Amino acid sequence: MSEILLSQLAHVEIMSPRPEESVRWFTDVLGLEETTRDGQSAYLRGWGEFLHHSLVITEGPEPALGHIGWRTYGPGDVDIIASRVAPELVEGWIDSSVGHGRALRLRTPSGHPTEVFWETELYEAPPELQTDMPLRPQRYTGRGAAVRYIDHVTVNTSSMAEEIAWYRASLGDRHTASITPEPGVSFFSTLTSNAIRSTHDIALVPDASHGRGRLNHIAYRVDQKLDVERAADVLLSSGAPIEFGPGIHGIDEITYLYVREPGGLRVELNAGGWQNSMPDLEPKHHHPDQGPMSYFRNLKMPDSMMDSFPPLDVARETFEGTGQFADAPGS
Amino acid sequence: MSEILLSQLAHVEIMSPRPEESVRWFTDVLGLEETTRDGQSAYLRGWGEFLHHSLVITEGPEPALGHIGWRTYGPGDVDIIASRVAPELVEGWIDSSVGHGRALRLRTPSGHPTEVFWETELYEAPPELQTDMPLRPQRYTGRGAAVRYIDHVTVNTSSMAEEIAWYRASLGDRHTASITPEPGVSFFSTLTSNAIRSTHDIALVPDASHGRGRLNHIAYRVDQKLDVERAADVLLSSGAPIEFGPGIHGIDEITYLYVREPGGLRVELNAGGWQNSMPDLEPKHHHPDQGPMSYFRNLKMPDSMMDSFPPLDVARETFEGTGQFADAPGS
Amino acid sequence: MSEILLSQLAHVEIMSPRPEESVRWFTDVLGLEETTRDGQSAYLRGWGEFLHHSLVITEGPEPALGHIGWRTYGPGDVDIIASRVAPELVEGWIDSSVGHGRALRLRTPSGHPTEVFWETELYEAPPELQTDMPLRPQRYTGRGAAVRYIDHVTVNTSSMAEEIAWYRASLGDRHTASITPEPGVSFFSTLTSNAIRSTHDIALVPDASHGRGRLNHIAYRVDQKLDVERAADVLLSSGAPIEFGPGIHGIDEITYLYVREPGGLRVELNAGGWQNSMPDLEPKHHHPDQGPMSYFRNLKMPDSMMDSFPPLDVARETFEGTGQFADAPGS
Amino acid sequence: MSEILLSQLAHVEIMSPRPEESVRWFTDVLGLEETTRDGQSAYLRGWGEFLHHSLVITEGPEPALGHIGWRTYGPGDVDIIASRVAPELVEGWIDSSVGHGRALRLRTPSGHPTEVFWETELYEAPPELQTDMPLRPQRYTGRGAAVRYIDHVTVNTSSMAEEIAWYRASLGDRHTASITPEPGVSFFSTLTSNAIRSTHDIALVPDASHGRGRLNHIAYRVDQKLDVERAADVLLSSGAPIEFGPGIHGIDEITYLYVREPGGLRVELNAGGWQNSMPDLEPKHHHPDQGPMSYFRNLKMPDSMMDSFPPLDVARETFEGTGQFADAPGS
Repeated sequence: MSEILLSQLAHVEIMSPRPEESVRWFTDVLGLEETTRDGQSAYLRGWGEFLHHSLVITEGPEPALGHIGWRTYGPGDVDIIASRVAPELVEGWIDSSVGHGRALRLRTPSGHPTEVFWETELYEAPPELQTDMPLRPQRYTGRGAAVRYIDHVTVNTSSMAEEIAWYRASLGDRHTASITPEPGVSFFSTLTSNAIRSTHDIALVPDASHGRGRLNHIAYRVDQKLDVERAADVLLSSGAPIEFGPGIHGIDEITYLYVREPGGLRVELNAGGWQNSMPDLEPKHHHPDQGPMSYFRNLKMPDSMMDSFPPLDVARETFEGTGQFADAPGS
Repeated sequence: MSEILLSQLAHVEIMSPRPEESVRWFTDVLGLEETTRDGQSAYLRGWGEFLHHSLVITEGPEPALGHIGWRTYGPGDVDIIASRVAPELVEGWIDSSVGHGRALRLRTPSGHPTEVFWETELYEAPPELQTDMPLRPQRYTGRGAAVRYIDHVTVNTSSMAEEIAWYRASLGDRHTASITPEPGVSFFSTLTSNAIRSTHDIALVPDASHGRGRLNHIAYRVDQKLDVERAADVLLSSGAPIEFGPGIHGIDEITYLYVREPGGLRVELNAGGWQNSMPDLEPKHHHPDQGPMSYFRNLKMPDSMMDSFPPLDVARETFEGTGQFADAPGS
Repeated sequence: MSEILLSQLAHVEIMSPRPEESVRWFTDVLGLEETTRDGQSAYLRGWGEFLHHSLVITEGPEPALGHIGWRTYGPGDVDIIASRVAPELVEGWIDSSVGHGRALRLRTPSGHPTEVFWETELYEAPPELQTDMPLRPQRYTGRGAAVRYIDHVTVNTSSMAEEIAWYRASLGDRHTASITPEPGVSFFSTLTSNAIRSTHDIALVPDASHGRGRLNHIAYRVDQKLDVERAADVLLSSGAPIEFGPGIHGIDEITYLYVREPGGLRVELNAGGWQNSMPDLEPKHHHPDQGPMSYFRNLKMPDSMMDSFPPLDVARETFEGTGQFADAPGS
Repeated sequence: MSEILLSQLAHVEIMSPRPEESVRWFTDVLGLEETTRDGQSAYLRGWGEFLHHSLVITEGPEPALGHIGWRTYGPGDVDIIASRVAPELVEGWIDSSVGHGRALRLRTPSGHPTEVFWETELYEAPPELQTDMPLRPQRYTGRGAAVRYIDHVTVNTSSMAEEIAWYRASLGDRHTASITPEPGVSFFSTLTSNAIRSTHDIALVPDASHGRGRLNHIAYRVDQKLDVERAADVLLSSGAPIEFGPGIHGIDEITYLYVREPGGLRVELNAGGWQNSMPDLEPKHHHPDQGPMSYFRNLKMPDSMMDSFPPLDVARETFEGTGQFADAPGS
């Protein structure tokens, strides 16, 4: 029997200074469904998700991460994780929360509020969204970009190697790939919490500000590469500026685009990716020249892609030498 | 820690009465690479596979299954499985075989020769196929249909419920979906051996002949739905008759096509599928009217799709009432 | 200077016994925009069309063709056409109509009311639909199937060869392809009115009823093959039964699907097609075995596809021997 | 009857300092078929083309344009064109050449050798490439990028407005679109010679060198947007550096990529494009901010895209202020 402790990235809570606009954008333009509201928070999910929600939007002074919620692989895994997390990172237990049961709350070494739980509440579609397709929790709506599933979250860390080690030891993640300009220096790393086939459900980027608990972006998934292009059409027509993409990352063959939601946060829409079927596959280290960010090796990311949340004065030169960046088109 | 015993369908051995033609077809038309030959067998793999081979083609009097090879999730899992398999099904241990190490050999209750192992040999690309892309074991060739990974194997059983129970108990599989014309009667079932995200890596169909160890088809995967259509163009141009498809199954949203290789076996090419992220999701039972075989609910499979291997005189009326079949186009 | 008299299929008027439901379906599910209403008629167009409308929906007792509107290639072409049409087919001139100027009204030999004109009114987008993309008459909405352009109309004739000859002689069309089960017997024919690159903008099918002026279907176009599949998802989710498809016709490589609108008429959505660049290319005659209806040669159309409008008691045996039909899936 | 004098861009002759390598690349990597050799020239065509050839590769000291061949719309159009071309541009008549009959040879005002003819020789497939699909001149091979048709040629001019006027007056072209940074200053213009539906078959870019007869690139077409991405995979795997793309131009919605062939010339592969159905549609003028080069408005072309052939010392600052360029990724 093998060590798999988590089954999926269950949800991410984000803070928005314009919560109503954010909810409307995620609903109308991205195509999420709102399950419920509770206090200062709205709970949303993609049309293909069985869980109660995958996104929580909470009013806050700045765009930022609220917390990350992981579902374990089985009922006993929450306690196994609790036994592995250093006491100073544990914040306590909650008996239940909206959409799920008993949960361990902790902070990762880089300060990201994290919640781990097994018991979940399933989404119940209202009559007008019910379907007779057994594999779907609701009818397909085709609204907006019609994103289907939450995919991953990308957060900042000031100590890449330590954070990777922590995710492996405490949550049972596998380290799948890094961008490594020189040996021992990782500029970007991906990990997967679940068994196989997924390229990653969490990624780490440096935090030049030495801030804590910062967020680079959250990602939602559509089915086919061409759906990312259609999503881009929807975004273009809605007036949303697309920061980068559509394009393909070479590190995982994922077709991406990045856009900002009304609260200011970066949101990725993606599809595709190679299929990683071996639990013991070594992490794949990519030199910047091997096209990890630009599969066809003829693009550079705009500098603005390193803006993380909450926003800080980041010395951009910190990222010089990574070989991945160009000035933004408009700069 | 959760019960996951297998990481992937590693390979399938098929018997062909025309082995040279079969090897040439899998190589030139499907786009597999031949790794090596050994005795009466040729070993092939998709261009995206890190393992030594995923297909073994062995000379034999009739098209048939040779054996199925599963890789475990971790080093100790072979022995856990050995402890769970009823002694009368165990055939013994082998120290090593082409491309992998120590393996348990057994027969499933329905008679399918099966091999379970952990240690594997990785594929080494010859110089002309080497690539600097870290996530690829070899260069992309674009040859023929350019199938990338083995996907699943579909075998026959005369006792569906028992076979499902055996795979769950002995190999740790999850039962993901069935076509159930009436309660308790499953006409088609899918299971997955690995953690999540895959709709299935083995499927079961009835065997009206009450034969043992029979095979319906093997499946290889391409990246995008449109790649299945391109594969169909390649097949059409090569003169290969496409038995069914391209189309979409509603049971898993997989885009499929079925064709026969020169030895006579049925081969599926596919892409897509919904994403199953919950280890405790109940199997999804589909009534035939819910489109499990035809997502858009306006096609029926040709009768010939129930021909299994080795070929037998099958009373087709056994399948009447399943609601899934029409006469073949040419009949 | 070469003989091209028409530039495009400008619009089709259809009759609907449920006009409000028809308008709502074409708007919400197909994604057309309503330009205006006038008397018993609503005027609609695809989001990519510069003309005032491409579809007129008029209340009527039965689903049927109202009339077909062709735009000429230049200002003088209406009079050239008038000089070529046999006097008994001419119905007269109108000074103007909704969305266009002076027009010749006539009936084709098979009785289809037809209008030919040059002067047109361009669509003006309301403020909320305006765009700064110069090649677009309005913003992309992404609503429903989001069909972009009218593509063709398929009508019935009891005298195929004569009707083809008439279109060539009177309107300057080119005959591009036919399905010809035996020499001299065409079961299906396509013509194009415009110069090149289009496989057809009108098609002819037999009318076993010896009715006059009957219609088989109208077709709207989306950009990519995969957009037809997405349209099918939208239709499936809306509860609309898809009569045939998605699939590919071999006669022109067009990816099709056929569905019925609330008034009862058949509507095709399509994409793709080969590129016909030679004005002198001979019509391509397809034997039914060459896959004209089913590119991959493993499907037959359901019988219901020959139901035309207004509905009549059609002796289906008339179509036997064409080699193109199977019983409908549900029959 | 309307003024359409040309039916298609029939072929382009290019000069290559490495003709054997160029022929091999166009055959193996792009997937063209070689029809014949004659003297210093090889004649090739896409698998979907009925004409004898669409590309001539001739040995020469530098990568450069040999000549452009246009086919007229009808037999009398060659003489109409001859009567319209200023005598000083006419170079004379030839009775026949490889693959076509009597032709007028001329130079455009910007010095591009041009050939106009009606009579053509059709391609005859050798036995191994024959197909029973009536609309195909040969079997689909799937080799390399499998480009299907020649699409357009983009040439340089030092006097944009005059060159456009000449194409309209002499060859009957329509001016379809321009990039116009300020009124009266066109940086890039497209024209179409044929009736409708095509966005362009010739484009003009400035020539800062004030050279004559220079070429920016030739373009071949594949069917679907995703085929451009697959072509890019083929190119990446072959080691060919992709200069720009895959991406989408906003001026015509064409999905593009640009690569250099072994002789040094730039070759575009493309798919898609909006459908222009109106002969009287005014040219669409795009301000650089409207995304004519980058549909999603977040990319700039590399400077190298203005390198034209034969290569010259071009003062790049000439293009400053057009708003379309960024430094090349590697620069």
